[in-house]
Amino acid sequence: MRVWTIKEPGSREQLTLENRDRPEPKDGEILIQIKAASINRTDTMTRQNQSLVKPYPILGVEVSGVVIENQSSDSRLDPGTKVAGLVNHGGYAEYVTMPADRAIIFHDSLSMEEAVAIPEVFLTAYQTLYWLGELKPKQKVLIHAGGSGVGTAAIQLARHLSEACIFTTAGQDHKLSVAKELGADHVINYKEESFDKIVSNLTDNKGVDVILDFVGASYWDKNLSSCALDARWVLIGALGGTTVEQVSLMQLMQKRISLKGTLLTPRSDDYKAELTKEFVEKAMPLIEAGTIKPIIHSVLPFEEAKEAHRQMEDNENTGKIILRVSE
Amino acid sequence: MRVWTIKEPGSREQLTLENRDRPEPKDGEILIQIKAASINRTDTMTRQNQSLVKPYPILGVEVSGVVIENQSSDSRLDPGTKVAGLVNHGGYAEYVTMPADRAIIFHDSLSMEEAVAIPEVFLTAYQTLYWLGELKPKQKVLIHAGGSGVGTAAIQLARHLSEACIFTTAGQDHKLSVAKELGADHVINYKEESFDKIVSNLTDNKGVDVILDFVGASYWDKNLSSCALDARWVLIGALGGTTVEQVSLMQLMQKRISLKGTLLTPRSDDYKAELTKEFVEKAMPLIEAGTIKPIIHSVLPFEEAKEAHRQMEDNENTGKIILRVSE
Repeated sequence: MRVWTIKEPGSREQLTLENRDRPEPKDGEILIQIKAASINRTDTMTRQNQSLVKPYPILGVEVSGVVIENQSSDSRLDPGTKVAGLVNHGGYAEYVTMPADRAIIFHDSLSMEEAVAIPEVFLTAYQTLYWLGELKPKQKVLIHAGGSGVGTAAIQLARHLSEACIFTTAGQDHKLSVAKELGADHVINYKEESFDKIVSNLTDNKGVDVILDFVGASYWDKNLSSCALDARWVLIGALGGTTVEQVSLMQLMQKRISLKGTLLTPRSDDYKAELTKEFVEKAMPLIEAGTIKPIIHSVLPFEEAKEAHRQMEDNENTGKIILRVSE
Repeated sequence: MRVWTIKEPGSREQLTLENRDRPEPKDGEILIQIKAASINRTDTMTRQNQSLVKPYPILGVEVSGVVIENQSSDSRLDPGTKVAGLVNHGGYAEYVTMPADRAIIFHDSLSMEEAVAIPEVFLTAYQTLYWLGELKPKQKVLIHAGGSGVGTAAIQLARHLSEACIFTTAGQDHKLSVAKELGADHVINYKEESFDKIVSNLTDNKGVDVILDFVGASYWDKNLSSCALDARWVLIGALGGTTVEQVSLMQLMQKRISLKGTLLTPRSDDYKAELTKEFVEKAMPLIEAGTIKPIIHSVLPFEEAKEAHRQMEDNENTGKIILRVSE
């Protein structure tokens, strides 16, 4: 089968199409004929990882396609079933194996390109909003980077699963328009306005119950002052720096804040399986009904992996960048 | 009835014995004839609170005694029942009312003095270890201030409810001996040893799952390095300062730490009722059986409230200071 790997760790020019053997599913796994594969930030990082040794891995962690062999006991995954999901590597290829309990089954209302845009951003958004953020119905949430993949997913989940009151920030007006369309109540251009003042004004100085924070240090004080009593503040990125000069513990204590650090790095297989199961139950019906929409930036032919990496590395995308592997 | 209140906010000399009317229980409340009352830090702070207005409150938030009138629908609380629990004020008195769902029923195996030593420290220890710290069976926990009221309660709960591996710190060897007797596995005199090195050595560099932190700023880096992956770090005091310089968010994220601030300030009545209910179910059988022991420093006659405040303000106690109100 044809796969994308690298000649040596380095620039996009190191990407190379090779032939490899089709993988064999082990007990508890399914074999998928891949129809579409997503580009993720981790792929461009793997491509440049100087500590890799040969044979270099097949890139790609997110696929959609059709089951062609089911070595699990789950009869819903018999051949012909359409699935999407996360794999540990091997996504830029014609076939891949996946633990059966990580497969997201979908039906004809979704295209292969829409389905492959779901797993990574929606599972991350679900995990941070609900498992870490413990968002309850009608609570208030502040979602930074509202135009990002996880941001757009989180806005939709908070809107349709929780009827939340949603504040979101972004630095470009077209991203704020998208956020508003997807269900954000209050959109804030952080280059023009102070989000903490707006949150304070619109919540009677009470603040929000949950913050999804991709920014870290540079927003520290503003996030702290935006927290309501008993707020959950989920720290999932540090685009604005990792070192906070001064932290006041008294405010963390007085507001009874839970600050929860996390990274989008591998969790255990059991964790992923349980997260996938809950997400499928709660959110997939709304995605299949078209209420919640996967956001796609571009769909490219399989041969154009270099161009796909360029789009990601130039930060051109607001939604997923997708390779179409086969019809 | 005789009560302790204040002439004016200020020193211990302002404490004064007065006569007040016996309170009337409202719907959902019980009236208690008080047998014993505990001294708490909040009492000495109330005594000095310059913003109080007349009539000044009756001091005291923790009592044990016998129900003499039951205005709730809970027939377990009928007259004659022995109870202990937290009240909002009015504890240094002969009678007090209490919401019925905050009463901890106890039996003859416990004396009134033992019972009154339970509510505040054990409910706080239970709340921080389990509700905030989410301690699971056989996990590792680091309990600072192991000789304090909450510390000694937390060590016993972690030992007998969770078979935890318990690290504890204190600054005096006799406190460490008590901690060891109560069930701590590893006791550390922070004046002589670095607790983070000991935690690291004894956990194969993995760290602990839960930290009960009464210290704050001065232990920040050592606590951070003592956290295991997915640790819950409960910040319940800042004896070592409230401002931390140069906080690294990357470590909070990489270790997926939950830092949870809390203060021993009023929570909602519902929260207190639910916490009391769970604590009674899980821990009271072990306390009544004598497996878990309330720790008492001194028992004084009701008339000696000034001496009781002196003992607390001079930090003489390792367990509760108690007033005996009536036989």
